[in-house]
Amino acid sequence: MSTMKPRTLSGFMELLPAPQQQMERFMSVLRETYSLYGFTPLDTPIIEDAQILLAKGGGETEKQIYRFQKGDSDLALRFDLTVPLAKYVALHYGELTFPFRRYQIGKVYRGERAQRGRFREFYQADIDIIGDGKLDIMNEAEIPSIIYKTFTRLGLRRFQIRVNNRKILNGFYAMLGLTEQSAEVMRTVDKLDKIGPEKVAALLREEVGVSPEATDEILRFIAIDGTNDQVMAALQGYVGRNELFDQGYEELGTVVRYLGAFGVPEENFRVDLTIARGLDYYTGTVYETALLDHPEIGSVCSGGRYDNLAGYYIDKPLPGVGISIGLTRLFYVLGEQGMLSEDMLTAPADALVLPMTEDMAPAITAATALREAGIRTQIYGEKKKFKAKMSYCSKLGIPFAVLMGEDEVAQNKLSVKNFATGEQVTVSVEEAVALIRAELTRRGEGTVICEK
Amino acid sequence: MSTMKPRTLSGFMELLPAPQQQMERFMSVLRETYSLYGFTPLDTPIIEDAQILLAKGGGETEKQIYRFQKGDSDLALRFDLTVPLAKYVALHYGELTFPFRRYQIGKVYRGERAQRGRFREFYQADIDIIGDGKLDIMNEAEIPSIIYKTFTRLGLRRFQIRVNNRKILNGFYAMLGLTEQSAEVMRTVDKLDKIGPEKVAALLREEVGVSPEATDEILRFIAIDGTNDQVMAALQGYVGRNELFDQGYEELGTVVRYLGAFGVPEENFRVDLTIARGLDYYTGTVYETALLDHPEIGSVCSGGRYDNLAGYYIDKPLPGVGISIGLTRLFYVLGEQGMLSEDMLTAPADALVLPMTEDMAPAITAATALREAGIRTQIYGEKKKFKAKMSYCSKLGIPFAVLMGEDEVAQNKLSVKNFATGEQVTVSVEEAVALIRAELTRRGEGTVICEK
Repeated sequence: MSTMKPRTLSGFMELLPAPQQQMERFMSVLRETYSLYGFTPLDTPIIEDAQILLAKGGGETEKQIYRFQKGDSDLALRFDLTVPLAKYVALHYGELTFPFRRYQIGKVYRGERAQRGRFREFYQADIDIIGDGKLDIMNEAEIPSIIYKTFTRLGLRRFQIRVNNRKILNGFYAMLGLTEQSAEVMRTVDKLDKIGPEKVAALLREEVGVSPEATDEILRFIAIDGTNDQVMAALQGYVGRNELFDQGYEELGTVVRYLGAFGVPEENFRVDLTIARGLDYYTGTVYETALLDHPEIGSVCSGGRYDNLAGYYIDKPLPGVGISIGLTRLFYVLGEQGMLSEDMLTAPADALVLPMTEDMAPAITAATALREAGIRTQIYGEKKKFKAKMSYCSKLGIPFAVLMGEDEVAQNKLSVKNFATGEQVTVSVEEAVALIRAELTRRGEGTVICEK
Repeated sequence: MSTMKPRTLSGFMELLPAPQQQMERFMSVLRETYSLYGFTPLDTPIIEDAQILLAKGGGETEKQIYRFQKGDSDLALRFDLTVPLAKYVALHYGELTFPFRRYQIGKVYRGERAQRGRFREFYQADIDIIGDGKLDIMNEAEIPSIIYKTFTRLGLRRFQIRVNNRKILNGFYAMLGLTEQSAEVMRTVDKLDKIGPEKVAALLREEVGVSPEATDEILRFIAIDGTNDQVMAALQGYVGRNELFDQGYEELGTVVRYLGAFGVPEENFRVDLTIARGLDYYTGTVYETALLDHPEIGSVCSGGRYDNLAGYYIDKPLPGVGISIGLTRLFYVLGEQGMLSEDMLTAPADALVLPMTEDMAPAITAATALREAGIRTQIYGEKKKFKAKMSYCSKLGIPFAVLMGEDEVAQNKLSVKNFATGEQVTVSVEEAVALIRAELTRRGEGTVICEK
């Protein structure tokens, strides 16, 4: 007698087997691409000492954190992968070699109000490059090239990585005498996409207290648009008035130039002076990534350059640059938009061996041979009618059924049925392997994401 | 100014980059092998409703569980992957196809007293096959064949999967009129390895209250030893006296016979009548796995057949068979025993491109070409002396340095230095790729585990 109705907590993603296969493929593309760029995988605990996790203090985050006592320990679940990275690098500083390049794909926890498409447990996929004291600007061009490669391998084409440099913004606001208000100004400018330039201007004047002249200057500045070359040319007009601005201009120019060498096409990469990133954390290049056909989703991959990763834990300047994908949310919205490929094989196996004799040893031997050849194989050992067996195969989308009856055993052959074509042939193990591999190659060519 | 000493909680594994690479390889062997046998990956939340997680009640486990309130929710961290599987199968029963074969590799949490080699956060790697109402005995032979394949692929040879059947044990104790005490008898017999037969006999007589005659019978029974055929022959002597025993005998015989068809050599597989598994949960075949040269480690992979996976959540009989590897502990003890291969490449990259010109674009172009060919590549962009650059490469164990100076740029070539041989050649991109691939193939032939 069951005693309890099973449920999964709201705000926690729990996928059925087929979408889970898509998620696995998604993650494996990330792992492979990050590895290709020389990042090493890390895996840090999900539980940390709450004091350490909250060393920086946390405002909104602190309210959302899962924090609890166990014995007399004050514990918390990580709410991002950046604070654990800072702790890791500070703790193992002497054992690491810098620049330290790591990726981490892991679950993080935020007890947000549950709502559609918002998750309390979600994967983040982060890459960061941490320098010891210094970190060359080249790294700031490499990061978006990795994102370009990752998204392309996932199957996306209509996306744009938007890049800016905080030094340009801070330098520009310094020119206008707005250094002290610059954070507030940037937060207001950040609303441009949502409320439009006129309302931004009104807010700047009325709430931030910016003069009408400076407000006009700001609006002219953030309206600079065009190709990367055009934007850089427009920025050149400001050079020579502020040292920080000039430095940012130089850096942005280098990033734009190197991105070509990294093989990133112009259409996937745009200098965008409205990008600031809310956090005060970033000090140089900043990134956002937009899906061009789905602007409502917002940035799906963001990050930037920071000067001091781990100041709370270690007296060493550790500058870095990194970017983060909110994987669970991205996977969810891609699914909602119907952008997850339906052609991709999501079956648990490539072949289902059906024993048609009382003794299953010949079927087992056949399955063992297929597996030796790398074919993902199940054996259906249940005593069911033939129709039920075939229905199991087709329900799961297993592309091939392999029948092992008296005839096949006598001939030392396998009968292989292709579910897509309906064709059935009786062949040797080697021929069966070749047949199945050919179809898998065809099916495997697709990508996880499929743009319509 | 740093304000806080960084630390990682005790009982939580946090690896440095090189061992983390070994752990990743370890997990990827598990994922690939489980997939080869037609298991689909699952990923369930780490946090569950505490009431649901503890539906079964939990004795020792309940004390160890991480349980806490968030808002008015009573939450807990999963302490194994079996209860979440039961919940999953019950919750999604109508959307799953049975037999349902899943693997899950995930972190679980137990607040045990911290001690060397014991972890509070650790990975379990589970496979289970769940039937709807029935599940064929063939599956009970397939499970150890998967463990055989997994361990072999990891690089182990000196291991033995030990198999018994609870029906044989329960039937045997029924013959002796000890059905009611059978759980206690089995717990006592389980101590055989540790305390020897004489002390087991004394405990059976004095603490469990077994008669001297029955005690002798038990000792004779558990002393049955030899090849699988010899043990099966000895067991045949008991056939005909108890129906449950006969059924278990029949099942064990089938498992032994099918294991040959699955390609498992005799030396890696032994019928062992002393294996019972503590839990009352198991009802048929039970498994343990020993590392022959390290008996002190105990079983590194255990499991068995159960009749009712999810009785607390659903009124359907869901029999299953599964096995679990305590991955974190296994990885830890293999490391302690010096059994993790040191030949395996643990570098974050295969090649390190060193720009030797002011403009890094040619170096970036070279790196992009190597990456296109699948070579994991880093670019070292820091402005350091040549010696420092080479030392970075050798500290990380990156097998190749690729030098891009004026000469290389002029010739449109790359200078490739093999760190193992010291050889340096100036070649085209295609030649560099071939050179690097050949060495990687050689280095990639090793396994994660290396027996001495």
